[in-house]
Amino acid sequence: MSANTSSGRPHKVTLADVAREANVSVSAASKALSRTDRISAETQRAVRMAAQRLGYRRPVDRAADATATVAGTAAGASAARAGRRGRSGLVGLITSDYNGRFSLPMLTGAESTLGASNHAALLMSSHGRPSLERSHIDRLAAYGVDGLIVVGDTTNPRPPLDARTTMGLPVVYTYDPSRDPRDCSIICDNVGAGAQAIEYLLSLGRRYIAIIAGSEDFQAARDRAKGAQRTFTLYDFQPVDVLFDSWSEDWGERAARLLVECHPHLDAVYCLSDEIARGAVRGLRAMGRDVPRDVAVVGHDNWFVFATNVHPTLTTFDNNIALIGKTAAKCLIDAINGHPHHGVVSVECPLIVRESTEVGRRTGLEGSERMFARQNA
Amino acid sequence: MSANTSSGRPHKVTLADVAREANVSVSAASKALSRTDRISAETQRAVRMAAQRLGYRRPVDRAADATATVAGTAAGASAARAGRRGRSGLVGLITSDYNGRFSLPMLTGAESTLGASNHAALLMSSHGRPSLERSHIDRLAAYGVDGLIVVGDTTNPRPPLDARTTMGLPVVYTYDPSRDPRDCSIICDNVGAGAQAIEYLLSLGRRYIAIIAGSEDFQAARDRAKGAQRTFTLYDFQPVDVLFDSWSEDWGERAARLLVECHPHLDAVYCLSDEIARGAVRGLRAMGRDVPRDVAVVGHDNWFVFATNVHPTLTTFDNNIALIGKTAAKCLIDAINGHPHHGVVSVECPLIVRESTEVGRRTGLEGSERMFARQNA
Repeated sequence: MSANTSSGRPHKVTLADVAREANVSVSAASKALSRTDRISAETQRAVRMAAQRLGYRRPVDRAADATATVAGTAAGASAARAGRRGRSGLVGLITSDYNGRFSLPMLTGAESTLGASNHAALLMSSHGRPSLERSHIDRLAAYGVDGLIVVGDTTNPRPPLDARTTMGLPVVYTYDPSRDPRDCSIICDNVGAGAQAIEYLLSLGRRYIAIIAGSEDFQAARDRAKGAQRTFTLYDFQPVDVLFDSWSEDWGERAARLLVECHPHLDAVYCLSDEIARGAVRGLRAMGRDVPRDVAVVGHDNWFVFATNVHPTLTTFDNNIALIGKTAAKCLIDAINGHPHHGVVSVECPLIVRESTEVGRRTGLEGSERMFARQNA
Repeated sequence: MSANTSSGRPHKVTLADVAREANVSVSAASKALSRTDRISAETQRAVRMAAQRLGYRRPVDRAADATATVAGTAAGASAARAGRRGRSGLVGLITSDYNGRFSLPMLTGAESTLGASNHAALLMSSHGRPSLERSHIDRLAAYGVDGLIVVGDTTNPRPPLDARTTMGLPVVYTYDPSRDPRDCSIICDNVGAGAQAIEYLLSLGRRYIAIIAGSEDFQAARDRAKGAQRTFTLYDFQPVDVLFDSWSEDWGERAARLLVECHPHLDAVYCLSDEIARGAVRGLRAMGRDVPRDVAVVGHDNWFVFATNVHPTLTTFDNNIALIGKTAAKCLIDAINGHPHHGVVSVECPLIVRESTEVGRRTGLEGSERMFARQNA
């Protein structure tokens, strides 16, 4: 039978083996063994009999056994997992990102680190739907991935995956941290970016600084504004205004016009996204202000379509998504090897200085045009 | 031994089984069995002995056998594949896209179709590097995917994957078609979009129409311009000018200024991308022209960051990437079931009418702002 190779070494029976044996899909086999209300009694019986014949045990049960003897759930599950044979060399990424702006750089970063330990990465898209997230993880687990990286797109903390879903697989959360502090999460250092933005503008001699924020519903907006306020307090300054609304160019333009009307001495604007910054540049110009001579503008995201595509090119913070991917991959490999990490790791967002803050600086568009030629035909 | 389950039904020996047996990575096993110059002699011997012990045969060899008895290489390979047991229910997408703009909608579209035949999709990123593309496909094949969708990002025809790489798996090419007409490729109907753009502008009563194209190195630029010329010829008109250069906003702005200088009667511009169109709107305004009253502007891509983010919102063609993904998935499922398609399928790019072409039309930004709030924190 399939649990042993001809050389006598054990071959782990997977859910895929059970599904094949029961002549059902992997997804149906998984449902039959876990969520009993969503599958016919007949299929349930067939799958359970197949599992019994093959000696299949669900990873969650194996992990639970190990957990009972090792302190700490995550450590126990991970140790149990590390003790298993037959690593696949595959890591699954589950993304809720719709437009790929976060998930492709994350995949690229993760792969560059995973390659060193001879792993490759697979990405599946959950469209932010928990049921799809669960079914994708079922599939990935059934095909024997060694761990999971969850890719968010909001910066807001998210509920952790439950143990029935992850079935003992190590998990690292990225961009959107897990609400459970025992989990390992890798995020952007938005507080640090906010603090550095104001340090930088003060160092340029700017004294009348406003903040145009996005929606206050997002952790990113609150964190960047919080970091900025920290630096203002440190140097005993105050922002001339802090305006929250939405993440659009239109809002950036409206806010910039309003700021010039209310604060004619305005000499710098820290915008919490590049779209907002692009709109702000337009609004400032419409009000007769030169960027950067009269008003310096800083953005956030280093999203090339907004940051490098027209003059003035934008001074902005890079979200360092590829480094988040690399860090997540490193933590996941550690967890796969039985050394899990816990808590939140913040990855620094470097400041990229371009034309929108420094008079006389000229960054060419040629490079970005070449990139466009490749990416945007 | 592992080639049979306890019920006596055959269990296909996979490359993963061989790797486990030889105690090497799947990637090393694949290299050992195919590309002999990149692996140590010791590993090669271990892998070959393991393959022999398990009775493993490379899919490319099995496909080649079948091909000898069935007319047509692709049909033969596919029929051989369809005859195999043990489908995984997984389809692999290999993308060369860096920023996810094409590959995530493609994944979403493919998944919605694959779900109906109980398949799920996995995405791997090759960064346009043929060696990485090959090694990813090795991994996917080793883990038993049923077929491959190749996702391009240039619109330019590409060399087909060679048979040693695909090992008999059915393949569908998207966005960038395969140069081999026997392959199945699904692309945007760029010629049709160009033809429709001019039909539409003529129907609005515009008579002095210019084309601002991207780089002539791209099939998309040549095809959209070709379609436009077809309609001009049909109605016995000529464009006032056709300017090729690059895919950037900066080029759109420069070209629009030049056009107004040379052709004061200009009343419409067909821009071959949304970035170009955004730049053109800026250039036209700088020259005192109102959009759309004086000059109507049409873009291409329906890339939300450019098309819906500021007024005037852009009339543009949608690349229909999700539908390309769905169509590719449908063709792939047919091929998996032994009914492969051949040749190039062009998917229509629908025209999305917004403010940049029709006076008095007002499309709100609220919807897009909400979308931003989710996507761009």
